[in-house]
Amino acid sequence: MKNFTHCVPTRFVFGRGVENEVGGLIREMGGTKVLIHYGGGSAVRSGLIDRVKASIESAGLSCVCLGGVKPNPRDTKVYEGIELVRREKVDFILAVGGGSVIDSSKAIAHGSCYDGDFWDFWCGKAKPERTMPFGAVLTMAAAGSESSNSCVITQESTLTKRGLRSELNRPRFAVMNPELAMSLPPYQIACGATDILAHIMERYFTCETEVDLTDRLCEGAMTAIIRAARIAVKHPDSYDAQAQLMWGSTIAHNDTLGIGRVQDWGSHQIEHELSALYDVAHGAGLAVVFPAWMRYHMDKNPMRFAQFAVRVYNCEMNFEHPEETALRGIEAHEAFLREIGMPLTLKELGARTEDIPKLAAKTKKTNPDGTTGGVFHMTPTDIEAILRIADR
Amino acid sequence: MKNFTHCVPTRFVFGRGVENEVGGLIREMGGTKVLIHYGGGSAVRSGLIDRVKASIESAGLSCVCLGGVKPNPRDTKVYEGIELVRREKVDFILAVGGGSVIDSSKAIAHGSCYDGDFWDFWCGKAKPERTMPFGAVLTMAAAGSESSNSCVITQESTLTKRGLRSELNRPRFAVMNPELAMSLPPYQIACGATDILAHIMERYFTCETEVDLTDRLCEGAMTAIIRAARIAVKHPDSYDAQAQLMWGSTIAHNDTLGIGRVQDWGSHQIEHELSALYDVAHGAGLAVVFPAWMRYHMDKNPMRFAQFAVRVYNCEMNFEHPEETALRGIEAHEAFLREIGMPLTLKELGARTEDIPKLAAKTKKTNPDGTTGGVFHMTPTDIEAILRIADR
Repeated sequence: MKNFTHCVPTRFVFGRGVENEVGGLIREMGGTKVLIHYGGGSAVRSGLIDRVKASIESAGLSCVCLGGVKPNPRDTKVYEGIELVRREKVDFILAVGGGSVIDSSKAIAHGSCYDGDFWDFWCGKAKPERTMPFGAVLTMAAAGSESSNSCVITQESTLTKRGLRSELNRPRFAVMNPELAMSLPPYQIACGATDILAHIMERYFTCETEVDLTDRLCEGAMTAIIRAARIAVKHPDSYDAQAQLMWGSTIAHNDTLGIGRVQDWGSHQIEHELSALYDVAHGAGLAVVFPAWMRYHMDKNPMRFAQFAVRVYNCEMNFEHPEETALRGIEAHEAFLREIGMPLTLKELGARTEDIPKLAAKTKKTNPDGTTGGVFHMTPTDIEAILRIADR
Repeated sequence: MKNFTHCVPTRFVFGRGVENEVGGLIREMGGTKVLIHYGGGSAVRSGLIDRVKASIESAGLSCVCLGGVKPNPRDTKVYEGIELVRREKVDFILAVGGGSVIDSSKAIAHGSCYDGDFWDFWCGKAKPERTMPFGAVLTMAAAGSESSNSCVITQESTLTKRGLRSELNRPRFAVMNPELAMSLPPYQIACGATDILAHIMERYFTCETEVDLTDRLCEGAMTAIIRAARIAVKHPDSYDAQAQLMWGSTIAHNDTLGIGRVQDWGSHQIEHELSALYDVAHGAGLAVVFPAWMRYHMDKNPMRFAQFAVRVYNCEMNFEHPEETALRGIEAHEAFLREIGMPLTLKELGARTEDIPKLAAKTKKTNPDGTTGGVFHMTPTDIEAILRIADR
């Protein structure tokens, strides 16, 4: 097990109706003037924004609103938010939405406490040293941004999508009512489940050290999330399925399942380029990239991919040819993704074969030697090969 | 899944040599004068206390020491600590040891900020409203006190052992070096593993709601801990086995594995009476009580006990007679406990048959109707029957 530090100070308030407690929480944490940040009109039309406003006002606080966050949240909306925070003297930011809205809120919170351009933190020019307190009312299970140390923003002018890791990215609280996710279309529920699984899988396909405990936790979580996703896509009104996806999204990405491990994140880097160029849903992009990534890398550690097949998809172990078992596991995962309605090919995403070299070249290099990925180091040639597997 | 709130703000610093970082951590958290609280002479003889002192002094802080905490920590030592804290104007308490030392430190921290008798919090007369900051250098994997909201103290004059649940019980940090546990005798490692498993099992045998995700996490953790315990008892110098037990102790009792569940804690209440009366190790007492508790209750929910048997101990499911499978699981658990050197009977603990009615009568009633246990409600007659199963 590798040395680690781990701290998730986010307070989780989980269950039916908990969005009505948000005003009291913000007051307890010292907020007086709140920016309610949200995405499309559905949060307004469903009455959620009104309920949140009522809770804030009945706690004796005031608020301003900023909607319009899009999936793959843009720097342009962040600049708008920072300006509003400064003009209105906001002292607490409340995200009401999914990962895009929470990420946009994190960027506004950091940027509001910084004299320079907030994008400095995303392009690597500066590190955030302080932030404004922020919390989240979660409306969908996917990105895990409600307690993760990640935040992904897209620069609109260049279509560059970049992530920032910082402990400042962890919200003060996450208010989580699984009922709020019931109105999502099945496609979006499936995208969320795919994202959740990918967050675990980026942590799971590690090779270096003995991590039986977190292996078992990852496998248990994946098993439960696959089951819950199958139910929730068919029966979005199943509270228990939605609850397990929602809590699953949280533990999948706040490092509860990453303890003591080397993590990869190569598939995420490749996917960032797909969703930046074609503006596809992040989960759909991952459904295309991750199985191709697995097929490309499985020969380097067939026993680990076989373990995934046996423990998560109940494949039978082929002791003579573990690589056969590994392949069965990848096929089972593809079948699951197909079952819940996810795409598996670049074509289904609307991506073009001729863009492959450009996508491979643009993928962020995460290692000092210019390669990408923490476990399986990839050159642009490797990434091109993976994208060609997905181009079927 | 039941509604819940969950917040573990403890910062975990885990790995080889991390005890040398403790001074910097305390300074960062505002401490200037530290009480180092510990147990027996081994922490001194091993040089650990000296290393901790050196780290504190090189961070520019001063310290005083109070050793002598015994297993099943006593109120008398807590009073001594509170007096020392006040006399020396201590502003940070550092536990160096296992669960007993950490629990004693928690009680000193709460008591130092309270005008009345600290025991008020344990006997239910008052609730703690503030505390002094405290952290822990963990030397053994067992109680999970390094991030739990629990604290158990024994009143020496009456041999009454009582627990306090409070969010104030969570340490500011937990410094965890698995190497420090390597010098423990195998019996103590086994007691620790038994305690860790019992913390998960108190959360696992729930019946009320759909909790597949935390079921799977509990099962995965139990599987890994059983494996690590078998290794660590034979090879105490296995870093990876000790690391998994140490991190296992933490997640077993900070509610990572209790999310959305009704919990029981009946076995713990019964065991508290055993260790208060005979001063046996808590883990050894649990090894005797828990299987007897399982045998007594399994008929009320044979499918849940069969699930434990199949998923944790790989027993084959008997679809015609699930209660047979349930029994095979209990037997497998007993065989595991025996294998790692744990007692299974009251006699092996040195407990007397004639004390059974007294033990049953004295067990804390946790429910308004005078029964004990969150899932399986027990009268003193039920508890007596369980103790008689253990009296074999």
